[in-house]
Amino acid sequence: MPRVHNYYAGPAALPLEALEAAREELLDFQGSGVSVMETSHRSKEYDQVHNETIALVKELMGLGDNYQVLLLQGGASMQFAMVPMNLLGEGQSADYILTGSWSQKAIKEAKIIGSARVAATTEKDGVFASIPKQDQLDLDAKAVYCHLTSNNTIFGTQWAKFPDTGSVALVADMSSDILSRRFDPAPFGIIYAGAQKNLGPSGLAVVVIRQDILDKCKKGLPTLLSYNTHADKNSLYNTPPSFTIYMVCQVLRWVKKSGGVEVMEKINTEKADLIYGAIDGSGGFYTNNIPAEDRSQMNVVFRLGSEELEKKFVAEGLAEGLVGLKGHRSVGGIRVSIYNANGLDSVKTVVGFMNDFAAKNG
Amino acid sequence: MPRVHNYYAGPAALPLEALEAAREELLDFQGSGVSVMETSHRSKEYDQVHNETIALVKELMGLGDNYQVLLLQGGASMQFAMVPMNLLGEGQSADYILTGSWSQKAIKEAKIIGSARVAATTEKDGVFASIPKQDQLDLDAKAVYCHLTSNNTIFGTQWAKFPDTGSVALVADMSSDILSRRFDPAPFGIIYAGAQKNLGPSGLAVVVIRQDILDKCKKGLPTLLSYNTHADKNSLYNTPPSFTIYMVCQVLRWVKKSGGVEVMEKINTEKADLIYGAIDGSGGFYTNNIPAEDRSQMNVVFRLGSEELEKKFVAEGLAEGLVGLKGHRSVGGIRVSIYNANGLDSVKTVVGFMNDFAAKNG
Repeated sequence: MPRVHNYYAGPAALPLEALEAAREELLDFQGSGVSVMETSHRSKEYDQVHNETIALVKELMGLGDNYQVLLLQGGASMQFAMVPMNLLGEGQSADYILTGSWSQKAIKEAKIIGSARVAATTEKDGVFASIPKQDQLDLDAKAVYCHLTSNNTIFGTQWAKFPDTGSVALVADMSSDILSRRFDPAPFGIIYAGAQKNLGPSGLAVVVIRQDILDKCKKGLPTLLSYNTHADKNSLYNTPPSFTIYMVCQVLRWVKKSGGVEVMEKINTEKADLIYGAIDGSGGFYTNNIPAEDRSQMNVVFRLGSEELEKKFVAEGLAEGLVGLKGHRSVGGIRVSIYNANGLDSVKTVVGFMNDFAAKNG
Repeated sequence: MPRVHNYYAGPAALPLEALEAAREELLDFQGSGVSVMETSHRSKEYDQVHNETIALVKELMGLGDNYQVLLLQGGASMQFAMVPMNLLGEGQSADYILTGSWSQKAIKEAKIIGSARVAATTEKDGVFASIPKQDQLDLDAKAVYCHLTSNNTIFGTQWAKFPDTGSVALVADMSSDILSRRFDPAPFGIIYAGAQKNLGPSGLAVVVIRQDILDKCKKGLPTLLSYNTHADKNSLYNTPPSFTIYMVCQVLRWVKKSGGVEVMEKINTEKADLIYGAIDGSGGFYTNNIPAEDRSQMNVVFRLGSEELEKKFVAEGLAEGLVGLKGHRSVGGIRVSIYNANGLDSVKTVVGFMNDFAAKNG
């Protein structure tokens, strides 16, 4: 079958170039006569990939030498636990800003480990339809960190501008919008991201950690759950998920070659304008009630007039080679995920389909 | 470059068939128009792979319905911590049998979490050159479990016959010999294995857990560190490392097609006889002082007369397309890892090289 348009929320579309590069050398990595999956994680061939991946994350995110990049297993879900295990001590408290299901999961883990409070929530009847404004935050100036989810895959919202938490370090789950736009990393103590949206296949979390935060991490943790273990060993304390990291390296090379995060941001803005334009211009056939400034550039969610019509939309889309349009099972509706690897053509295709579908069914 | 002979200890050689199958459909998985790396872990295409992988592990290991198979991230190293986190309660103690570096790492994690004792060790001056006999075990009849490492990749030893621990459940790290030979699973409460030796690429641990052990696991753990989380959700609580699981599925299909574990065992015995025969028949040019009954069928370690000669052996092997012959950096010497995917031809090749090298340098 020819390649289809892939709008899955994650695991998600990868740049075709990255897949083709992997296929080309799948049986013979860099002339070594073995697959990258078969080479020792202590070999010079793998070492190059590992270090290039870390260097590209630093370069593309514009991180200074006060940040380390860790490549860890367990995805973002493991970070929900590792952040408080490493940072949240006796008698301390952490702030969490709740903007959706993932931030709820994050605070749940923090409360298993220590004391955490809600600094803001936009939840109403189980729905999170916006991002809180600065004056809606009830921040604890003594919090050991303040956690947020930069983009909410399920509810389709995104922080356009990160909040000011003063001297309290931000900790952010950027799984679904890392490398999609520029931002100043300085206020962030930790940034983590499951790879399977903007970075590569599933099975990896990229964790960016500031040196002062690393220095404050608790001792006496199980070895693999301590950030310092991985920082001290360049993420090679134990066998890393080497093929997954290799794929992330291919994706990062593609981002760099495409012009870096600045160019990604420009294209992502154009993509979002196109698709939200189609929704808002549909005369109510498609609805999205999120305030314009809180709308996600990565996951565009909308409803149609009925669930039947939504099912028809998904089925007809699939028949035309548009895969993954169904909304998250917890909220229903339609979701179009358009990460970096979904180019303008991919968005124009879905917009064309939306316009046709509205014309026929409106 | 043509494919070479790969004797890495892990990540290690994979069956060529598995790699070719992956390459064939890398851009179009099962006619879906997307790579398996790009498909949702909730898609029906991925679901099939996930469930087939679990079913094949059960079938090939001959596990009854009282066992569950979990597919977890973090490799065996994470299991060093998860086992005691889940099983070792206040006032309880676990037994550990020490036969090498990996079992030392396992008990270190247990002691961070609770109380653990050494039921036996074969360590002398930092070297573990044998497996303890039944009468050398100092077992605690009240231990919550007894942990062992079935095969020791660094020291080249292997349990030929597992110890009798009475009513105390065995917990085994079988990372380096899972599916290499038949054994009765009944005494085992947990069997875990990092995938990167006999199962597939790195980035996954297969965990086999008996229902009565699962029922005894502690509550209130961080969600992702609880075995029950994954058992309740068929290892789909969070996004699994789907491509890695897909590769493991390819390897398991190959094992089944080749005749299953019985055939693997027969070939592995033949392979081990060949290579140990070459060592013992070298008139002292190659030395391995491990008692015959404790020698590993997976990782064959030996020394030559000097480190210079060992370096020459590794370099000349490499020049002839024999990759990964260097012993573990902690012990030196030579190590030839011959997991399931290294067929008889691979062992005959290294044996031929050994004989030639001995003739020239002896």
